[in-house]
Amino acid sequence: MEAKRTSFNILLFDEYEAMDAFGPAEIIGHMSARYSLNYYSLNGGIITSTQNLGSVTYPVEEMDTTGVLLIPGGVGTRRIVQDACAIRSIADLAGHAEYVLTVCTGSAVLAMTGMLDGRRATSNKIVLDWVRNLRDQVLWQKTARWTVDGKYYTSSGVTAGMDMTLGFLRDIHGPGVARSAANFIEYVWNDDMSFDPFALE
Amino acid sequence: MEAKRTSFNILLFDEYEAMDAFGPAEIIGHMSARYSLNYYSLNGGIITSTQNLGSVTYPVEEMDTTGVLLIPGGVGTRRIVQDACAIRSIADLAGHAEYVLTVCTGSAVLAMTGMLDGRRATSNKIVLDWVRNLRDQVLWQKTARWTVDGKYYTSSGVTAGMDMTLGFLRDIHGPGVARSAANFIEYVWNDDMSFDPFALE
Repeated sequence: MEAKRTSFNILLFDEYEAMDAFGPAEIIGHMSARYSLNYYSLNGGIITSTQNLGSVTYPVEEMDTTGVLLIPGGVGTRRIVQDACAIRSIADLAGHAEYVLTVCTGSAVLAMTGMLDGRRATSNKIVLDWVRNLRDQVLWQKTARWTVDGKYYTSSGVTAGMDMTLGFLRDIHGPGVARSAANFIEYVWNDDMSFDPFALE
Repeated sequence: MEAKRTSFNILLFDEYEAMDAFGPAEIIGHMSARYSLNYYSLNGGIITSTQNLGSVTYPVEEMDTTGVLLIPGGVGTRRIVQDACAIRSIADLAGHAEYVLTVCTGSAVLAMTGMLDGRRATSNKIVLDWVRNLRDQVLWQKTARWTVDGKYYTSSGVTAGMDMTLGFLRDIHGPGVARSAANFIEYVWNDDMSFDPFALE
Protein backbone atom coordinates (compact mmCIF):
# COMPACT_ATOMS: atom_id res chain seq x y z
CA MET A 1 0.00 0.00 0.00
CA GLU A 2 1.40 3.34 -0.99
CA ALA A 3 1.57 5.97 1.77
CA LYS A 4 -0.35 9.14 1.06
CA ARG A 5 1.96 11.82 -0.26
CA THR A 6 2.20 15.14 1.54
CA SER A 7 0.96 18.06 -0.52
CA PHE A 8 3.69 20.69 -0.96
CA ASN A 9 1.69 23.79 -1.86
CA ILE A 10 3.33 26.81 -3.45
CA LEU A 11 1.35 30.04 -3.29
CA LEU A 12 1.99 32.24 -6.33
CA PHE A 13 0.96 35.84 -6.95
CA ASP A 14 1.73 38.31 -9.73
CA GLU A 15 5.31 39.61 -9.63
CA TYR A 16 6.61 36.81 -7.44
CA GLU A 17 10.29 35.93 -7.77
CA ALA A 18 10.44 32.73 -9.84
CA MET A 19 13.42 31.13 -8.18
CA ASP A 20 12.04 31.71 -4.69
CA ALA A 21 9.37 29.21 -5.72
CA PHE A 22 11.19 26.92 -8.13
CA GLY A 23 14.44 26.50 -6.19
CA PRO A 24 12.52 24.76 -3.39
CA ALA A 25 10.27 23.04 -5.97
CA GLU A 26 13.34 21.62 -7.69
CA ILE A 27 14.45 20.00 -4.42
CA ILE A 28 11.03 18.75 -3.37
CA GLY A 29 10.44 17.45 -6.91
CA HIS A 30 13.17 14.88 -6.35
CA MET A 31 11.13 13.54 -3.41
CA SER A 32 8.13 12.65 -5.55
CA ALA A 33 7.47 9.46 -3.57
CA ARG A 34 6.82 11.58 -0.49
CA TYR A 35 5.54 14.94 -1.78
CA SER A 36 3.20 16.13 -4.51
CA LEU A 37 3.97 19.61 -5.83
CA ASN A 38 1.04 21.93 -6.45
CA TYR A 39 0.76 25.59 -7.44
CA TYR A 40 -2.00 27.85 -6.19
CA SER A 41 -2.99 31.51 -6.13
CA LEU A 42 -5.71 33.31 -4.20
CA ASN A 43 -7.98 33.38 -7.26
CA GLY A 44 -6.45 30.73 -9.54
CA GLY A 45 -5.62 31.31 -13.21
CA ILE A 46 -2.42 32.38 -14.93
CA ILE A 47 0.05 34.11 -12.58
CA THR A 48 3.07 35.96 -13.97
CA SER A 49 6.45 36.19 -12.22
CA THR A 50 8.81 39.16 -12.37
CA GLN A 51 10.75 37.03 -14.86
CA ASN A 52 7.81 37.26 -17.31
CA LEU A 53 6.83 33.63 -16.76
CA GLY A 54 3.09 32.95 -16.84
CA SER A 55 2.08 29.75 -15.06
CA VAL A 56 -1.10 27.86 -14.35
CA THR A 57 -2.39 28.00 -10.77
CA TYR A 58 -5.42 26.57 -9.01
CA PRO A 59 -7.53 28.57 -6.56
CA VAL A 60 -6.64 28.04 -2.91
CA GLU A 61 -10.10 26.53 -2.28
CA GLU A 62 -8.76 23.41 -4.00
CA MET A 63 -5.67 23.16 -1.77
CA ASP A 64 -5.08 20.26 0.62
CA THR A 65 -4.24 22.73 3.38
CA THR A 66 -2.92 20.07 5.74
CA GLY A 67 0.31 19.91 3.72
CA VAL A 68 3.31 22.21 3.55
CA LEU A 69 2.77 25.82 2.45
CA LEU A 70 5.56 27.76 0.71
CA ILE A 71 5.32 31.53 0.18
CA PRO A 72 7.89 33.03 -2.21
CA GLY A 73 8.98 36.66 -2.19
CA GLY A 74 9.20 39.27 -4.90
CA VAL A 75 8.06 42.82 -5.57
CA GLY A 76 4.46 41.58 -5.68
CA THR A 77 4.60 41.13 -1.89
CA ARG A 78 4.44 44.92 -1.52
CA ARG A 79 0.83 44.85 -2.66
CA ILE A 80 -0.10 41.77 -0.64
CA VAL A 81 1.14 43.08 2.72
CA GLN A 82 -1.30 46.00 2.32
CA ASP A 83 -4.24 43.78 1.32
CA ALA A 84 -6.11 42.78 4.49
CA CYS A 85 -8.34 40.34 2.64
CA ALA A 86 -5.36 38.52 1.12
CA ILE A 87 -3.61 38.39 4.50
CA ARG A 88 -6.71 36.85 6.14
CA SER A 89 -6.81 34.14 3.47
CA ILE A 90 -3.11 33.44 3.86
CA ALA A 91 -3.46 33.29 7.66
CA ASP A 92 -6.13 30.65 7.20
CA LEU A 93 -3.93 28.58 4.88
CA ALA A 94 -0.89 28.95 7.14
CA GLY A 95 -2.93 28.07 10.20
CA HIS A 96 -3.96 24.73 8.71
CA ALA A 97 -0.54 23.88 7.25
CA GLU A 98 1.72 21.37 8.98
CA TYR A 99 4.72 23.53 8.06
CA VAL A 100 5.01 26.99 6.53
CA LEU A 101 8.13 27.93 4.56
CA THR A 102 8.84 31.47 3.36
CA VAL A 103 11.56 32.80 1.07
CA CYS A 104 12.84 36.37 0.97
CA THR A 105 9.96 38.88 1.30
CA GLY A 106 7.52 35.98 1.51
CA SER A 107 8.47 36.29 5.20
CA ALA A 108 6.90 39.76 5.25
CA VAL A 109 3.64 38.33 3.93
CA LEU A 110 3.56 35.68 6.67
CA ALA A 111 4.57 38.28 9.28
CA MET A 112 1.50 40.35 8.45
CA THR A 113 -0.72 37.49 9.63
CA GLY A 114 0.76 37.94 13.13
CA MET A 115 1.79 34.28 13.20
CA LEU A 116 5.49 35.16 13.45
CA ASP A 117 5.03 37.54 16.40
CA GLY A 118 7.59 36.71 19.08
CA ARG A 119 9.26 34.20 16.76
CA ARG A 120 12.65 34.25 15.04
CA ALA A 121 12.43 34.94 11.31
CA THR A 122 14.54 36.37 8.50
CA SER A 123 14.29 37.76 4.98
CA ASN A 124 16.48 39.19 2.23
CA LYS A 125 19.04 41.36 4.00
CA ILE A 126 18.74 44.29 1.58
CA VAL A 127 15.07 44.77 2.52
CA LEU A 128 15.24 43.84 6.19
CA ASP A 129 14.52 47.40 7.37
CA TRP A 130 11.32 47.47 5.31
CA VAL A 131 10.30 44.09 6.70
CA ARG A 132 11.03 45.12 10.30
CA ASN A 133 8.99 48.29 9.93
CA LEU A 134 6.04 46.29 8.67
CA ARG A 135 5.88 44.07 11.76
CA ASP A 136 8.37 44.74 14.54
CA GLN A 137 6.79 42.17 16.88
CA VAL A 138 8.75 39.54 14.92
CA LEU A 139 12.26 38.69 16.16
CA TRP A 140 13.90 39.52 12.83
CA GLN A 141 17.38 37.99 12.49
CA LYS A 142 20.03 40.13 10.80
CA THR A 143 22.42 37.23 10.37
CA ALA A 144 20.77 33.99 9.34
CA ARG A 145 20.66 32.04 6.10
CA TRP A 146 17.40 30.64 7.38
CA THR A 147 15.49 30.23 10.65
CA VAL A 148 13.27 27.58 12.19
CA ASP A 149 10.81 28.43 14.96
CA GLY A 150 7.99 26.00 15.60
CA LYS A 151 6.44 25.02 12.28
CA TYR A 152 7.76 28.15 10.57
CA TYR A 153 10.83 28.10 8.33
CA THR A 154 11.91 31.48 6.93
CA SER A 155 14.84 32.18 4.64
CA SER A 156 16.96 35.00 3.38
CA GLY A 157 17.01 35.98 -0.32
CA VAL A 158 16.28 33.78 -3.33
CA THR A 159 18.90 31.00 -3.27
CA ALA A 160 18.72 30.84 0.54
CA GLY A 161 15.34 29.23 -0.07
CA MET A 162 17.12 26.18 -1.46
CA ASP A 163 19.40 25.94 1.57
CA MET A 164 16.34 26.19 3.82
CA THR A 165 14.39 23.56 1.88
CA LEU A 166 17.32 21.16 2.14
CA GLY A 167 17.44 21.99 5.87
CA PHE A 168 13.73 21.22 6.09
CA LEU A 169 14.31 17.83 4.44
CA ARG A 170 17.18 17.15 6.86
CA ASP A 171 14.98 17.96 9.87
CA ILE A 172 12.11 15.77 8.67
CA HIS A 173 13.81 12.91 6.81
CA GLY A 174 17.45 12.96 7.97
CA PRO A 175 20.73 14.30 6.59
CA GLY A 176 21.19 11.55 4.01
CA VAL A 177 18.01 12.46 2.17
CA ALA A 178 18.92 16.16 2.12
CA ARG A 179 22.49 15.52 0.96
CA SER A 180 21.28 13.21 -1.78
CA ALA A 181 18.83 15.86 -3.07
CA ALA A 182 21.56 18.51 -3.08
CA ASN A 183 23.98 16.25 -4.95
CA PHE A 184 21.35 15.31 -7.49
CA ILE A 185 20.95 18.93 -8.55
CA GLU A 186 24.75 19.47 -8.25
CA TYR A 187 24.11 22.15 -5.64
CA VAL A 188 26.77 23.22 -3.15
CA TRP A 189 24.50 23.33 -0.10
CA ASN A 190 25.21 25.90 2.60
CA ASP A 191 23.97 23.55 5.32
CA ASP A 192 24.65 25.90 8.26
CA MET A 193 21.58 28.05 8.85
CA SER A 194 23.63 30.55 10.89
CA PHE A 195 26.26 31.09 8.18
CA ASP A 196 25.01 34.10 6.23
CA PRO A 197 27.48 35.46 3.66
CA PHE A 198 25.07 38.28 2.84
CA ALA A 199 24.45 39.69 6.32
CA LEU A 200 24.92 43.46 6.21
CA GLU A 201 26.42 43.99 9.67
CA MET B 1 17.15 56.84 -26.95
CA GLU B 2 16.81 53.44 -25.34
CA ALA B 3 19.02 50.71 -26.76
CA LYS B 4 17.16 47.69 -28.11
CA ARG B 5 17.11 44.94 -25.54
CA THR B 6 18.52 41.53 -26.42
CA SER B 7 15.93 38.77 -26.44
CA PHE B 8 16.86 35.98 -24.01
CA ASN B 9 14.85 33.05 -25.30
CA ILE B 10 14.20 29.99 -23.16
CA LEU B 11 13.04 26.89 -25.03
CA LEU B 12 10.72 24.75 -22.91
CA PHE B 13 9.39 21.25 -23.56
CA ASP B 14 7.32 18.84 -21.48
CA GLU B 15 9.25 17.31 -18.57
CA TYR B 16 11.98 19.94 -18.58
CA GLU B 17 13.75 20.62 -15.29
CA ALA B 18 12.30 23.86 -13.93
CA MET B 19 15.40 25.21 -12.27
CA ASP B 20 17.53 24.59 -15.36
CA ALA B 21 15.40 27.29 -16.94
CA PHE B 22 14.50 29.55 -14.02
CA GLY B 23 17.91 29.69 -12.34
CA PRO B 24 19.34 31.45 -15.42
CA ALA B 25 16.06 33.41 -15.84
CA GLU B 26 16.37 34.68 -12.28
CA ILE B 27 19.81 36.11 -13.07
CA ILE B 28 18.93 37.53 -16.47
CA GLY B 29 15.72 39.00 -14.99
CA HIS B 30 17.84 41.37 -12.92
CA MET B 31 19.28 42.73 -16.17
CA SER B 32 15.93 43.89 -17.52
CA ALA B 33 17.43 47.05 -19.03
CA ARG B 34 19.53 44.85 -21.31
CA TYR B 35 17.54 41.65 -21.80
CA SER B 36 13.92 40.68 -22.32
CA LEU B 37 13.00 37.22 -21.08
CA ASN B 38 10.75 35.10 -23.28
CA TYR B 39 9.54 31.53 -23.10
CA TYR B 40 8.95 29.39 -26.19
CA SER B 41 8.23 25.82 -27.17
CA LEU B 42 8.26 24.10 -30.56
CA ASN B 43 4.46 24.31 -30.82
CA GLY B 44 3.54 26.93 -28.21
CA GLY B 45 0.88 26.45 -25.52
CA ILE B 46 1.10 25.21 -21.95
CA ILE B 47 4.29 23.25 -21.21
CA THR B 48 4.64 21.25 -17.98
CA SER B 49 7.91 20.76 -16.11
CA THR B 50 8.88 17.65 -14.15
CA GLN B 51 7.96 19.72 -11.09
CA ASN B 52 4.30 19.76 -12.23
CA LEU B 53 4.47 23.44 -13.24
CA GLY B 54 2.44 24.36 -16.31
CA SER B 55 3.60 27.55 -18.01
CA VAL B 56 2.58 29.62 -21.00
CA THR B 57 4.89 29.44 -24.02
CA TYR B 58 4.82 30.98 -27.47
CA PRO B 59 5.60 29.04 -30.65
CA VAL B 60 9.18 29.39 -31.87
CA GLU B 61 7.94 31.07 -35.07
CA GLU B 62 7.43 34.18 -32.90
CA MET B 63 10.98 34.14 -31.50
CA ASP B 64 13.49 36.92 -32.20
CA THR B 65 16.09 34.32 -33.09
CA THR B 66 18.97 36.78 -33.18
CA GLY B 67 19.03 36.82 -29.36
CA VAL B 68 20.35 34.33 -26.81
CA LEU B 69 18.91 30.80 -26.80
CA LEU B 70 18.83 28.75 -23.59
CA ILE B 71 18.00 25.03 -23.63
CA PRO B 72 17.31 23.45 -20.23
CA GLY B 73 17.67 19.77 -19.44
CA GLY B 74 15.35 17.25 -17.88
CA VAL B 75 13.93 13.80 -18.58
CA GLY B 76 11.99 15.29 -21.51
CA THR B 77 15.26 15.57 -23.44
CA ARG B 78 15.24 11.79 -23.88
CA ARG B 79 12.33 12.14 -26.30
CA ILE B 80 13.72 15.20 -28.07
CA VAL B 81 17.13 13.69 -28.90
CA GLN B 82 15.30 10.95 -30.84
CA ASP B 83 13.00 13.39 -32.69
CA ALA B 84 14.71 14.38 -35.94
CA CYS B 85 12.12 17.03 -36.73
CA ALA B 86 12.58 18.72 -33.33
CA ILE B 87 16.36 18.61 -33.70
CA ARG B 88 16.16 20.27 -37.15
CA SER B 89 14.03 23.08 -35.68
CA ILE B 90 16.42 23.54 -32.75
CA ALA B 91 19.41 23.56 -35.13
CA ASP B 92 17.75 26.39 -37.04
CA LEU B 93 17.14 28.40 -33.84
CA ALA B 94 20.66 27.76 -32.53
CA GLY B 95 22.17 28.67 -35.89
CA HIS B 96 20.58 32.10 -35.81
CA ALA B 97 21.27 32.78 -32.12
CA GLU B 98 24.09 35.08 -31.09
CA TYR B 99 24.81 32.75 -28.14
CA VAL B 100 23.46 29.34 -27.19
CA LEU B 101 23.43 28.27 -23.52
CA THR B 102 22.58 24.75 -22.40
CA VAL B 103 22.04 23.34 -18.93
CA CYS B 104 22.41 19.69 -17.90
CA THR B 105 20.96 17.37 -20.60
CA GLY B 106 20.03 20.42 -22.67
CA SER B 107 23.61 19.91 -23.87
CA ALA B 108 22.57 16.55 -25.33
CA VAL B 109 19.81 18.22 -27.31
CA LEU B 110 22.22 20.76 -28.77
CA ALA B 111 24.80 18.03 -29.43
CA MET B 112 22.31 16.17 -31.62
CA THR B 113 22.28 19.13 -34.03
CA GLY B 114 26.00 18.46 -34.71
CA MET B 115 26.83 22.04 -33.77
CA LEU B 116 28.99 20.93 -30.83
CA ASP B 117 31.06 18.47 -32.90
CA GLY B 118 34.74 19.05 -32.17
CA ARG B 119 33.87 21.53 -29.43
CA ARG B 120 34.24 21.33 -25.65
CA ALA B 121 30.96 20.78 -23.82
CA THR B 122 29.66 19.32 -20.58
CA SER B 123 26.48 18.08 -18.91
CA ASN B 124 25.26 16.61 -15.64
CA LYS B 125 27.97 14.21 -14.51
CA ILE B 126 25.60 11.39 -13.56
CA VAL B 127 24.38 11.14 -17.17
CA LEU B 128 27.62 11.91 -18.99
CA ASP B 129 27.97 8.37 -20.34
CA TRP B 130 24.50 8.58 -21.94
CA VAL B 131 25.35 11.96 -23.43
CA ARG B 132 28.69 10.75 -24.78
CA ASN B 133 27.10 7.72 -26.42
CA LEU B 134 24.58 9.96 -28.16
CA ARG B 135 27.22 12.06 -29.88
CA ASP B 136 30.85 11.13 -29.33
CA GLN B 137 32.11 13.73 -31.83
CA VAL B 138 31.71 16.30 -29.03
CA LEU B 139 34.69 16.88 -26.73
CA TRP B 140 32.74 16.06 -23.57
CA GLN B 141 34.43 17.39 -20.42
CA LYS B 142 34.32 15.12 -17.36
CA THR B 143 35.44 17.89 -15.00
CA ALA B 144 33.88 21.26 -15.73
CA ARG B 145 31.23 23.33 -13.99
CA TRP B 146 30.63 24.90 -17.38
CA THR B 147 32.37 25.29 -20.74
CA VAL B 148 32.63 28.03 -23.36
CA ASP B 149 33.55 27.23 -26.95
CA GLY B 150 32.73 29.82 -29.58
CA LYS B 151 29.18 31.01 -29.04
CA TYR B 152 28.26 27.87 -27.10
CA TYR B 153 28.03 27.80 -23.31
CA THR B 154 27.22 24.41 -21.77
CA SER B 155 26.85 23.61 -18.09
CA SER B 156 26.75 20.71 -15.71
CA GLY B 157 23.61 19.87 -13.71
CA VAL B 158 20.84 22.23 -12.60
CA THR B 159 22.48 24.82 -10.34
CA ALA B 160 25.59 24.84 -12.55
CA GLY B 161 23.36 26.69 -15.01
CA MET B 162 23.36 29.67 -12.64
CA ASP B 163 27.14 29.65 -12.37
CA MET B 164 27.36 29.52 -16.18
CA THR B 165 24.85 32.33 -16.67
CA LEU B 166 26.80 34.53 -14.27
CA GLY B 167 29.94 33.58 -16.22
CA PHE B 168 28.18 34.57 -19.44
CA LEU B 169 27.33 37.97 -17.94
CA ARG B 170 30.94 38.36 -16.82
CA ASP B 171 32.22 37.59 -20.32
CA ILE B 172 29.81 40.01 -22.01
CA HIS B 173 29.35 42.82 -19.46
CA GLY B 174 32.28 42.48 -17.05
CA PRO B 175 32.83 40.99 -13.59
CA GLY B 176 31.07 43.81 -11.70
CA VAL B 177 27.76 43.17 -13.41
CA ALA B 178 27.97 39.43 -12.75
CA ARG B 179 28.96 39.86 -9.09
CA SER B 180 26.16 42.35 -8.54
CA ALA B 181 23.59 39.93 -9.99
CA ALA B 182 24.89 37.10 -7.76
CA ASN B 183 24.76 39.26 -4.65
CA PHE B 184 21.26 40.45 -5.43
CA ILE B 185 19.95 36.90 -5.31
CA GLU B 186 22.22 36.11 -2.33
CA TYR B 187 23.88 33.40 -4.36
CA VAL B 188 27.34 32.07 -3.54
CA TRP B 189 28.66 31.99 -7.09
CA ASN B 190 31.15 29.28 -8.06
CA ASP B 191 32.91 31.61 -10.50
CA ASP B 192 35.60 29.13 -11.60
CA MET B 193 34.30 27.16 -14.56
CA SER B 194 36.95 24.46 -14.04
CA PHE B 195 36.06 23.85 -10.37
CA ASP B 196 33.58 20.99 -10.48
CA PRO B 197 32.65 19.59 -7.06
CA PHE B 198 30.47 16.95 -8.73
CA ALA B 199 32.97 15.46 -11.17
CA LEU B 200 32.90 11.67 -10.86
CA GLU B 201 36.58 10.92 -11.47
